[in-house]
Amino acid sequence: MTYCVGLLLDDGLVLLSDTRTNAGVDNISTYRKMFTFVDPGERAIAIMTAGSLSVTQTTLAKLEEAISDPDAPSIMTAGTMLEVVEMVGRTLSEVSTHVAGQMGAKAASARASMIVAGQRKGGAPRLFLVYPEGNFIEATDDTPYLQIGEHKYGKPILDRVVEPGTTLTDAKKAVLLSMDSTLRSNLSVGLPLDLCVIETDKMMISEMRRIEADDQVFASMSQAWSQALRDGFRGIEI
Amino acid sequence: MTYCVGLLLDDGLVLLSDTRTNAGVDNISTYRKMFTFVDPGERAIAIMTAGSLSVTQTTLAKLEEAISDPDAPSIMTAGTMLEVVEMVGRTLSEVSTHVAGQMGAKAASARASMIVAGQRKGGAPRLFLVYPEGNFIEATDDTPYLQIGEHKYGKPILDRVVEPGTTLTDAKKAVLLSMDSTLRSNLSVGLPLDLCVIETDKMMISEMRRIEADDQVFASMSQAWSQALRDGFRGIEI
Repeated sequence: MTYCVGLLLDDGLVLLSDTRTNAGVDNISTYRKMFTFVDPGERAIAIMTAGSLSVTQTTLAKLEEAISDPDAPSIMTAGTMLEVVEMVGRTLSEVSTHVAGQMGAKAASARASMIVAGQRKGGAPRLFLVYPEGNFIEATDDTPYLQIGEHKYGKPILDRVVEPGTTLTDAKKAVLLSMDSTLRSNLSVGLPLDLCVIETDKMMISEMRRIEADDQVFASMSQAWSQALRDGFRGIEI
Repeated sequence: MTYCVGLLLDDGLVLLSDTRTNAGVDNISTYRKMFTFVDPGERAIAIMTAGSLSVTQTTLAKLEEAISDPDAPSIMTAGTMLEVVEMVGRTLSEVSTHVAGQMGAKAASARASMIVAGQRKGGAPRLFLVYPEGNFIEATDDTPYLQIGEHKYGKPILDRVVEPGTTLTDAKKAVLLSMDSTLRSNLSVGLPLDLCVIETDKMMISEMRRIEADDQVFASMSQAWSQALRDGFRGIEI
């Protein structure tokens, strides 16, 4: 399983993914699920992936192949973020269909979804969720976040604290606490985590940080949150 | 959809269910999902249901039919809570199989699960989750709660605050806040709620309360919890 979450805020895009991949509970590995594509000052794009590793890896490989081919249209040359997400959706859908064809009856596991976030010079920051079939939805002011994978445990905190005016610092707290709830409740989501921030109008990756299992900041944040929840719980009257 | 949760504590059993039933999002009704069976001083049993309404209603009707037949074995005459849950599981499985046969290809929606809780004189309080196939699991000291239906949103709070020594008052708070998180994140779970408490060794329903949409206690608890979460969030350093 996987948990990836992206926020679209006035100040920028904040993205967090875990890295646990499993083929059954007895075959667990660490794979990066966050990929960035940057042309400094021109465009910054981040893609997070959930679902079949064979599908997501092949999709990313094809997107990268297009980037390195000077004659091919790619997510680094697309005119708008909308064209970028259409390109990702088309590639994902083609790979998914191809792998499903190879898998036959087991085709259900050839599915994957992605979050595509970024900004190109002259455009606004945008955040999309691409479905396995290649269609997509976009985050808006009303619902300024998107999630893929094991999204339910970490949704209540987002519903309560995230809005377009949330600061980047609070946003990082929110996605980390959302991940913390997910880690506690679903073993198949696991550390390390990848945190990425793309500040508005900078067209660069403002922050990219891997949070390892021994990360002190994350550990004490997680502990403080547990304590805050227990204190809050105690304070409530029935 | 549905959310039902049961806690097995030293002081007793605490159960909470919602009442929203839907056949598609445009056909929503209120149906009780909590059913109690009491022989005061001898036994007190509560059953909560999730899944196909036709399956759960028929299962309950059959259990009740057996109770009113003086010659038939029933959950009111079964020697132990284990026999009670076996009887519920057998009935659920039979009804489910029968309805699935009628539905043919749509058999997937002829599924239901139940939480069975109770105590009979001479035995300990016990809490079971019955699967659609009739098999079941039991709550233990390590995991003193069971959930059916839309269980994910409300799990983090239970994981953090519920243990066998939790008081009944705190337990009521915990299940109500667990439900509150679920109500916020899933529209197909809805008020009113049914709250039931079976105190240890009383062999009676100690409390049975319907919480309507205009319940002031629940509303202010829900508000206080939101505030506590936001305050806790603000207090955390990153």
